[in-house]
Amino acid sequence: MQRIVLLTEGFTEPETAKTAASVLRYRREDVVAILDSTQAGRTAEELLETGGDVPIVASLDEIELADTLVLGIAPPGGKLPDTWRPTILTAISRGMDIVNGLHHFLVDDAEFVQAAERHNVELKDLRRNNESDIAQRKDLNDKCLRVHTVGHDCTVGKMLTAIELTRGLKLADHDAKFVATGQTGILVSGDGIPMDRVISDFVNGAAERLVRENQHHEMMIIEGQGSLAHPSYSGVTLGMLHGFFPHALIMCYEVGRQWTKGVEHVPVPPLAKIFELYETMASIWRPCPVIGISMNSRLVDEAAADEEVVRMEKQFGIPVCDVVRHGPKKLIDAIVNFNQRRLASE
Amino acid sequence: MQRIVLLTEGFTEPETAKTAASVLRYRREDVVAILDSTQAGRTAEELLETGGDVPIVASLDEIELADTLVLGIAPPGGKLPDTWRPTILTAISRGMDIVNGLHHFLVDDAEFVQAAERHNVELKDLRRNNESDIAQRKDLNDKCLRVHTVGHDCTVGKMLTAIELTRGLKLADHDAKFVATGQTGILVSGDGIPMDRVISDFVNGAAERLVRENQHHEMMIIEGQGSLAHPSYSGVTLGMLHGFFPHALIMCYEVGRQWTKGVEHVPVPPLAKIFELYETMASIWRPCPVIGISMNSRLVDEAAADEEVVRMEKQFGIPVCDVVRHGPKKLIDAIVNFNQRRLASE
Repeated sequence: MQRIVLLTEGFTEPETAKTAASVLRYRREDVVAILDSTQAGRTAEELLETGGDVPIVASLDEIELADTLVLGIAPPGGKLPDTWRPTILTAISRGMDIVNGLHHFLVDDAEFVQAAERHNVELKDLRRNNESDIAQRKDLNDKCLRVHTVGHDCTVGKMLTAIELTRGLKLADHDAKFVATGQTGILVSGDGIPMDRVISDFVNGAAERLVRENQHHEMMIIEGQGSLAHPSYSGVTLGMLHGFFPHALIMCYEVGRQWTKGVEHVPVPPLAKIFELYETMASIWRPCPVIGISMNSRLVDEAAADEEVVRMEKQFGIPVCDVVRHGPKKLIDAIVNFNQRRLASE
Repeated sequence: MQRIVLLTEGFTEPETAKTAASVLRYRREDVVAILDSTQAGRTAEELLETGGDVPIVASLDEIELADTLVLGIAPPGGKLPDTWRPTILTAISRGMDIVNGLHHFLVDDAEFVQAAERHNVELKDLRRNNESDIAQRKDLNDKCLRVHTVGHDCTVGKMLTAIELTRGLKLADHDAKFVATGQTGILVSGDGIPMDRVISDFVNGAAERLVRENQHHEMMIIEGQGSLAHPSYSGVTLGMLHGFFPHALIMCYEVGRQWTKGVEHVPVPPLAKIFELYETMASIWRPCPVIGISMNSRLVDEAAADEEVVRMEKQFGIPVCDVVRHGPKKLIDAIVNFNQRRLASE
């Protein structure tokens, strides 16, 4: 167990601080406080919609015992906010390890490296990797079901859906493995590859490596990244889709999302179009259908969410639910049924 | 002008040694010899289908004046063959600069770095880059036509097609710019970005940077990489397609190619399917058609090539030619006509 402080200074809201929100959701017992001087006195739940009464504090001085500072944001491009440098140096001087999911690596930053050596703390860059193998499309064990969560945009719940489905499948006595593909998933689950930091030639190969390493399980639920319709990140998304070579997809979307995250002048295509893009690209070598829809209804009320479920199930003819609001049962049934039919037809 | 020796030891055939073949095709006046002890005494033309009587020699001892050693192969994964180390060290000891397009960087290799310092020569790693911007889908000048050469597989002629089209357009008094996206294109043209070595999060953004830097031209002809249907490289291909956001595509294919390069157990999908994949993915935000087909008919005879042209033009209803065998005229007309219609309809 760790005693974590989540640094979200100036960015404590669910989307930009999604790393912090996920640590609160899945490792809450390890979290001591959130550090954001602009929101001091409030609680995690109020601002991040998770984390209960974990306090937001203005300064490390207010925290008695803490051993780890986690940089809790995932901004586009992954740059380090300049204003965070003094806080990180203070944490180091107090003997805290630093966990960083940004593209800006602490171990490449002389000031942090010197401070860490002086105070004997660890700088852990979650996105650092050394992937250098190209995909071979070989030695994949199709006995192990591969389900991939994909989305119509960034920040719609692909990781959360994959974690909730894995938990639900385990509770139903299935040997399911959550496969993390981003810094937050890695921080929460303890393994995985930060796919968006892999050299582009090796993305498909890195995905394939994760398949080979996990295919002793009955099934793997693989976190998606970006979107095939995102002008900035589609390359990562397709490299993963072809490297993981899944048997089935779960489509994640946020109700009401109209404009693409980070490029807000670009419309998100209609979901029917999104389905076409994914099923076309996933089914080049063999059919790979979307078998369920994970609806993120965080911005609408209960009644609107229920109406949306009815409308979507009618339009697409597959199960739809919000895994937070309704629980993941419908999607778990869809996965288990799909796998039974798949194995029976072999 | 340089005096280049092309190192292809053990790999002097057109596909694996495509870097060497392209330097011979487009910078032949700079090439002194090819180094391959297994083929000594033969000529470039005999083994690489280009380069005329440039000699293949067994040892650097046979070459009087040379200032640059170019590593002339592009193997899958970009690893350095171990057997090449002594030859590279000998070249360095003779005062030759080394130009390297592999993923294995010479500047990260202590033995080469020490030797280069001792002999005061330059180690030039063509794939090294520092791209770190995400795509914004902004500030793109649509007055400048963007044509992107894409393909049904690797090593079918996407770079060669882009170069030949650019040359032909310039001869017809158009202000056309060849945009290089791989180590060989960069070596031949002097600028560009090695897209397959960019961190995956920044591939779309690197492509967009190349658009911004070149859009003062009337048109740019952008070299493609990989294929949307290649299990190993599709991520790079899609990132480029969305980052370059082209107005039109030229489809490159090799007559008779049935199995995917590097993963020869995976079939190449039929061309009609390949068209569907590219046009679907390129047209998410606005229509981007394939307007011509660049046929690589190197493996068939004249009669078979002519028959193939007729058959393909009937099937797809757009101009088809082999830019080496027939010259690029048909495709140049297609591009110019497309651009006239496009600008007139605005």
